[in-house]
Amino acid sequence: MNEALSKILGKEIKCLDKGFIRLIDAMGDDSSIVQAARVSYGKGTKTPSADRELIRYLMRHRHTSPFEMVEFKFHIKLPIFVARQWIRHRTANVNEYSGRYSEMKDEFYVPEIEQIRTQSTINKQGRDEERLPEETAKLILQILQESQYLLYSQYQSMLEKNLARELARINLPLSTYTEWYWKIDLHNLLHFLKLRLDWHAQYEIRVYAEKIAEILKIAVPITWEAFEDYILGGINLSKQEINVLKQIINFDRLSDELIENSSLKGLEAKEFMMKLKKITLR
Amino acid sequence: MNEALSKILGKEIKCLDKGFIRLIDAMGDDSSIVQAARVSYGKGTKTPSADRELIRYLMRHRHTSPFEMVEFKFHIKLPIFVARQWIRHRTANVNEYSGRYSEMKDEFYVPEIEQIRTQSTINKQGRDEERLPEETAKLILQILQESQYLLYSQYQSMLEKNLARELARINLPLSTYTEWYWKIDLHNLLHFLKLRLDWHAQYEIRVYAEKIAEILKIAVPITWEAFEDYILGGINLSKQEINVLKQIINFDRLSDELIENSSLKGLEAKEFMMKLKKITLR
Amino acid sequence: MNEALSKILGKEIKCLDKGFIRLIDAMGDDSSIVQAARVSYGKGTKTPSADRELIRYLMRHRHTSPFEMVEFKFHIKLPIFVARQWIRHRTANVNEYSGRYSEMKDEFYVPEIEQIRTQSTINKQGRDEERLPEETAKLILQILQESQYLLYSQYQSMLEKNLARELARINLPLSTYTEWYWKIDLHNLLHFLKLRLDWHAQYEIRVYAEKIAEILKIAVPITWEAFEDYILGGINLSKQEINVLKQIINFDRLSDELIENSSLKGLEAKEFMMKLKKITLR
Amino acid sequence: MNEALSKILGKEIKCLDKGFIRLIDAMGDDSSIVQAARVSYGKGTKTPSADRELIRYLMRHRHTSPFEMVEFKFHIKLPIFVARQWIRHRTANVNEYSGRYSEMKDEFYVPEIEQIRTQSTINKQGRDEERLPEETAKLILQILQESQYLLYSQYQSMLEKNLARELARINLPLSTYTEWYWKIDLHNLLHFLKLRLDWHAQYEIRVYAEKIAEILKIAVPITWEAFEDYILGGINLSKQEINVLKQIINFDRLSDELIENSSLKGLEAKEFMMKLKKITLR
Repeated sequence: MNEALSKILGKEIKCLDKGFIRLIDAMGDDSSIVQAARVSYGKGTKTPSADRELIRYLMRHRHTSPFEMVEFKFHIKLPIFVARQWIRHRTANVNEYSGRYSEMKDEFYVPEIEQIRTQSTINKQGRDEERLPEETAKLILQILQESQYLLYSQYQSMLEKNLARELARINLPLSTYTEWYWKIDLHNLLHFLKLRLDWHAQYEIRVYAEKIAEILKIAVPITWEAFEDYILGGINLSKQEINVLKQIINFDRLSDELIENSSLKGLEAKEFMMKLKKITLR
Repeated sequence: MNEALSKILGKEIKCLDKGFIRLIDAMGDDSSIVQAARVSYGKGTKTPSADRELIRYLMRHRHTSPFEMVEFKFHIKLPIFVARQWIRHRTANVNEYSGRYSEMKDEFYVPEIEQIRTQSTINKQGRDEERLPEETAKLILQILQESQYLLYSQYQSMLEKNLARELARINLPLSTYTEWYWKIDLHNLLHFLKLRLDWHAQYEIRVYAEKIAEILKIAVPITWEAFEDYILGGINLSKQEINVLKQIINFDRLSDELIENSSLKGLEAKEFMMKLKKITLR
Repeated sequence: MNEALSKILGKEIKCLDKGFIRLIDAMGDDSSIVQAARVSYGKGTKTPSADRELIRYLMRHRHTSPFEMVEFKFHIKLPIFVARQWIRHRTANVNEYSGRYSEMKDEFYVPEIEQIRTQSTINKQGRDEERLPEETAKLILQILQESQYLLYSQYQSMLEKNLARELARINLPLSTYTEWYWKIDLHNLLHFLKLRLDWHAQYEIRVYAEKIAEILKIAVPITWEAFEDYILGGINLSKQEINVLKQIINFDRLSDELIENSSLKGLEAKEFMMKLKKITLR
Repeated sequence: MNEALSKILGKEIKCLDKGFIRLIDAMGDDSSIVQAARVSYGKGTKTPSADRELIRYLMRHRHTSPFEMVEFKFHIKLPIFVARQWIRHRTANVNEYSGRYSEMKDEFYVPEIEQIRTQSTINKQGRDEERLPEETAKLILQILQESQYLLYSQYQSMLEKNLARELARINLPLSTYTEWYWKIDLHNLLHFLKLRLDWHAQYEIRVYAEKIAEILKIAVPITWEAFEDYILGGINLSKQEINVLKQIINFDRLSDELIENSSLKGLEAKEFMMKLKKITLR
């Protein structure tokens, strides 16, 4: 574990109003990916630049198994409605706080006022950029908080009557905070981030994804850079889109100089030329 | 698909006050398990009794992969707190109703009065046999229902103010009903049932497990019988427990006659004698 | 199951010299994907064209879970070295013929003479287009076959000496045929095909992938078309490649007419314009 | 990582004639299991003896998820026929040496002479205790080695003719050594060991399982002890077996003294009495 990562190990990184993410442990780093890949692909030179090239090659060609050789464990505190989206990522290990064993705490998510936004018209599942009028927003926040207060006092009162915990909790709201340990390999974590950093993802889970992204930048900097270049910053074009695109590409402008002045070097430059050929030949 | 199973296909089987389970599709039955196992274990005779013996052998020896060759798909309506326990079974496919895309419906779980029970003292995670005094129970049910009503009207009012659906829903209670399609193979389904039919499981998920069990009795009767005999009706003994047990076993009472009069036949009888030998030799 | 699919059900489709693929069972089709997706995304209109649009939308946006709701089961006979690549796809169910339980059969893969090719210089893991001289190729085939004959007669002779099957088999070659039942959901099957239809994949597994592709064209025609348009026929561009591309695109040529004459309609056309904007703004 | 474990980290532990197992990395230990479980089950006291009790409770009641919070990575060299059994454990990460990218090495498994045994008559899939006559055994070993030598020289000669590596290798025997990196969580590793330490498992994979068991004894001593007491050293009894057993149990011999003198203490003693009651009441 590098020094910068050690420094954040175990520290609570704040997310939303009362949540956090806390890196508990990490197995491996960029070099572990290289180590595992070299078993499959043969030895070759082992300079740092060769390692970087190898990781970028693996990412570019979606050779995912070496990225599974790195593992992270987090302690996370998050609202239940976020947890419900999160848990859909099945290739991970989870131990969650149990409202059957233990009393739920008096902690609920209350959005910041600038998040009180209208239903999006383009993104059926999300909120818009547009905020609700301040007065309405304040009213909504007040309603949310008052209900949370009411529900928790009812919860307490039912517990005092000795109602079983597993029943007393059923009316607690989805905004209630829960917490869990979550362990996942780097490949599946990157997939999680690809989906949850996306603008379609709900803001409240995106906040966590962004904090994890910052941790990965420190933990596996070469992998992260490749992930940004090839996955996050990339574009998929369909067969139909390629057909249109080729009609507006001016292949005359393509010159050795252009490639040389670009950041595409060596094998990547060759692969790009092959893609362009594929586009033209359609 | 056998006739009895066809009859319940697509039918809503009521669970709790407003939920249901509905078998959507099934791939394979007892004979598919035999078919797959015979690829691994060689051909042999193929009489119906041989098939039964094979399935029982597979179950007894935890040869799980042939049971993965049968698949079931269900449509289920269930309270969110049940869904949260259910989803922990990761080896399954799920499509859930989304409160981001669509408006949540005005449907909440209200327990029956006889379920309003005290915290169990032996089972830290569950409720006791003992019911709360009727008056208290009635009061609790009233509180639950009034809060559900209040929360849903607040939800509606926030939607009317054009608050994004994904935010308006965050104060809905865990008793809100959701629904999903759930697809799982028979091996993993039996594992689900083993855990969720157990008396430690929360009553509300057990209700669903029992309905699925009834479906399996119809769908894969031989497998189900073996599951009851070897898994549900079985006992695990630890090394320490065996050490005590052997001191109270009267091996003199063990006679050929005893075995003959039991339902242990052929290979099973032999295996039992080997287990007893293992116990004595400790 | 549609009629065309029923016709091939259970039929051996030849692969390589002695292998085959045989569809044993299928759960669901294009309409099951729509059915599951509508649970998540709300009801909407239900015309056939709406169904097609929905499936294409799901594929385009990598909403993978509805594709998991369709399941296929195959009986496959294949050489062991192909089986070793195949089994790396973990999200599937397998029952393989066991050389511990049963005697291995006298069946080995012998390549066709046109497959006897040189090591590729561009694809480190594969063969070239270039064939070895016919004489050399014939010699190689002869060596392969003679060794297979020798090894099987040694195997037989060791079994006759009553050597345990699990040991007698250890010198059988990787070209020995094995067989298995293989069950997988459509999402994971498409992922398998993406990797195994690729020109980087070894020819011998590609042959099987192509036969499965033909089955899917019949079983889930709309999904297959979308898979070809968005995945197989698509291209990924990296951040760096986009940077070069934008310098050779002539945005003046982009006109409403061009889009109208293309096969990009409605939402897809809009999404394409957004991608282009993303490219320009870099 | 405790000191004893650090000492074996990275060291090759010999398995079979040319294989090895090498611990590359470990995430967590007994205390990580406790840490994760306490999130779910509430805080409680934290004395070392409480930790031990908690781990034993989790193992006894098959609460498997906290054991998933510990992860191990190994570098393993093993014959291909062993690798084929090993890879059936799907919940693990693997990077294997590739015969397409790299030349296979001249290393083959040759059994020790005492392993040259006859087909078992009771265990259809295994070998017997009985060895083949020494002369026959020697002859078999000679045949195995000569064939391995022949096949490798043919492999070499085909590579010299520039045949693609992916084809040249297809006649290499299943006794050829391969190697891989293998990463797995503790729960799934214990399941692997349960199956592969069993006397039904092929000797050659059992050798590896036993070495891993020794590593776990050092890495997670409390978990290992619980695993031996409750899983490896335990017995499953079926409903039918319980019915016979209760007829030969002399419940009069059961006394408080007997329990007190046993190693069943506290909760475990109570649970045992409940099991006995379950047996009697049948």
